[in-house]
Amino acid sequence: MSPSETRVLTLDFGGTKLAAAVVDTRGGEICSFLRRPTPILQDVTACITTMFDMGRQALEECGLSTPARVGISFGGPISADRKEVLMSCHVAGWEGVPLPKLASEAFDCPAEMDNDANAAALGSWYFDTHTEPDDMVYVQISTGIGSGLILNRNLFRGGGMAGEIGHITVIPDGPECMCGKRGCLESLCAGWALARDGREALEKASKDSALYQLCEGDPSQIDVQLLIQAARRGDSQAKAIVNRAFTALGIAIANVISLLDPQVIVLGGGVARAEKEMRAVLDPVIRRELYPPFRERYKLRFSHLNGKETLLGAALLHE
Amino acid sequence: MSPSETRVLTLDFGGTKLAAAVVDTRGGEICSFLRRPTPILQDVTACITTMFDMGRQALEECGLSTPARVGISFGGPISADRKEVLMSCHVAGWEGVPLPKLASEAFDCPAEMDNDANAAALGSWYFDTHTEPDDMVYVQISTGIGSGLILNRNLFRGGGMAGEIGHITVIPDGPECMCGKRGCLESLCAGWALARDGREALEKASKDSALYQLCEGDPSQIDVQLLIQAARRGDSQAKAIVNRAFTALGIAIANVISLLDPQVIVLGGGVARAEKEMRAVLDPVIRRELYPPFRERYKLRFSHLNGKETLLGAALLHE
Repeated sequence: MSPSETRVLTLDFGGTKLAAAVVDTRGGEICSFLRRPTPILQDVTACITTMFDMGRQALEECGLSTPARVGISFGGPISADRKEVLMSCHVAGWEGVPLPKLASEAFDCPAEMDNDANAAALGSWYFDTHTEPDDMVYVQISTGIGSGLILNRNLFRGGGMAGEIGHITVIPDGPECMCGKRGCLESLCAGWALARDGREALEKASKDSALYQLCEGDPSQIDVQLLIQAARRGDSQAKAIVNRAFTALGIAIANVISLLDPQVIVLGGGVARAEKEMRAVLDPVIRRELYPPFRERYKLRFSHLNGKETLLGAALLHE
Repeated sequence: MSPSETRVLTLDFGGTKLAAAVVDTRGGEICSFLRRPTPILQDVTACITTMFDMGRQALEECGLSTPARVGISFGGPISADRKEVLMSCHVAGWEGVPLPKLASEAFDCPAEMDNDANAAALGSWYFDTHTEPDDMVYVQISTGIGSGLILNRNLFRGGGMAGEIGHITVIPDGPECMCGKRGCLESLCAGWALARDGREALEKASKDSALYQLCEGDPSQIDVQLLIQAARRGDSQAKAIVNRAFTALGIAIANVISLLDPQVIVLGGGVARAEKEMRAVLDPVIRRELYPPFRERYKLRFSHLNGKETLLGAALLHE
C-alpha cells in the first residue's frame, strides 16, 4: 500500500472549533494539523468553505493532492444513514446539509461522516487502547458531553443516535439543561455547566477567595481549568462545584457499567484533563453506585490522545 | 426435522418459583408446563432434584423421552461462560453450581443456561415482536427488575452481566436496595419495593381507606396488584406509591433509550401487568426525561406472552 492510500483527510466540525488534519492510519500519525475557532456568526456555506480551505492547506502541507478519503466528524446529531447533518446545537442552518457528498466532490474521493463522540470512541479504541477491547465506552467530557459505544468490536449506533450519555437524567428535577430538560449529566458536568456554576459562585465570592483572585473578578474568565485551580488552592465553593459535577459523572458512569458491563470506560475531552481531581471523586462514587458484583471488575482509563481522539477516529470511518 | 428435534425442555429457576416446560420452538407452543414454589428452605441439591423431577414429568406429559436440548434460565448472576451459577439472591449455596452440566447428564442431551432476563428478552424478541427488531431492550419488572439487551439481533452480554437495569441509580441517596446500595430502580419499582412501601403506608392508613380494606389490615396481603386496586379506588397513599414507582421506571427507561436508541422497549413481568396504570405515568415521564430528538421516535410495548417469556426464551438458548 502506497503512503497516499493510508493518508486520510479528517475534518472536525466542533461547536467551538474547526480542525483539519491529514492522518496516516497505519500508525495514527498526524501529518499536518490546522485549527481555528468555529465562525459562529458566518452562515453554514461560509463555514464549510473555511473548513474545506483548511483541508486543502492540510493536504498541501504534507504534499498530498488527493487523500485516500475524507473522514468527517460533526459535533451534533446526524442522520441514521450518516449522509446528512440533522442539526448543530451551536450554529443554525445545518439541518439536512449533505456534508459527505460536498466533501467527496471537493476532494475527489470517498467521504464518510459520524458524530464527534463516535469518531472519538473509534480513535481511542483503535489508537489508544492497544488491546482493542471487545466492548468499550468512550465518554467525551468537554463543552458538552457525549459518548461512543464500541460493542462487539464495532461502533454501536442503535437507530443512529445511541450514546447520548450527556442527556441521561442523573438528578431528577436537577438543573436546567441546554436541551430543555432537567438534571441531565450535561447540566451538571459539561464545561458550560461548570462555567455557569462558577459564575454564580463568583457573585457571592469574597475578594480574597481563590476563585475571585484567579479570574480577577471577571466571570467570563471562569472555565473548568480555573475552577480546578481554585479548588486546588482550597476554595470551598470551587471544591463544591467540582465535587458535584464529578459525582454526577460517577453516577452516570456507574449506570452505564451496570447496563453494558464493558471491559473498559475511557474518558476524554477538556474536562477530563483534570485526571487527578476527577479520579479522587469518581472512584469512590462509581464503587458506591455500582451494583456490587461489578465493583471489582470495572476498569476506568483516561485517554492518552490529548484531544486528538476525534481527528484520529474520523480517519477510520468507512462504509 | 422431526418433532422431537424442535422440542426443548426448559427449566426456570426463579427466586419465588420453579417452572419446567416442553417448548416446541417452531411456533413457541408450550406442550407441557409445571410450576411450584421455590423450596427456599431446602438445600441446593434438593432444589435441583425437585426441578429435574419436574422436567421428567414435563417430558412424560408430552410423550417425549429425550428432548432436543435443555434450556435453563436462572434468576441470578451466572458466570461469563454461562456454565456455572455465580449466586442466587434468594437462596444460599448456589455459588459455582454447574447447572448445564448437571442437566446435560440428567437428560442425556446438550444443555444451555442464561439468566432469566436474558432468556425472557430472547423469548419476547423471537416469539412476540414478529418483526424481530435489530435492537430491543426487554425490561422484566417483577419481584426484582432486570433487562435483556438484544443488540444487532443478538443478546448482548458485555463481560457477561450486561442488563442490570434494576441496579442503575435513579434517585441518588434514594431508598435502600436489597443489593446494598441506594436509589436503585429496584428499590423504587420492584415488586418487593412496592410491597414495602404499601406496608409502611398501611401503618398510617385509616381503617376506611381502600388500602386498609383491601388487605383487611394485614400487611402481608399487600402486593402490587392490591396497591393498583387501591389506587383505582382513589386511595391517595396507594396512588402516590404507584406514581413514584412508575416515575422511577420512566426515568430509567428514558436513560436507556438515550444511551442505546433501540427500536423498541418491551415491558414484561408481574408488575407490568398493570399496563393501563403504568402507561398513564410512563408515557409523560419518558417524554419529559428523554433527550428531545428521541421523543418522537421511541416505541414502548407491553409483552403479550403472559409471563411465559422466560420459558420460551430459554428454549432458544444455544451455544
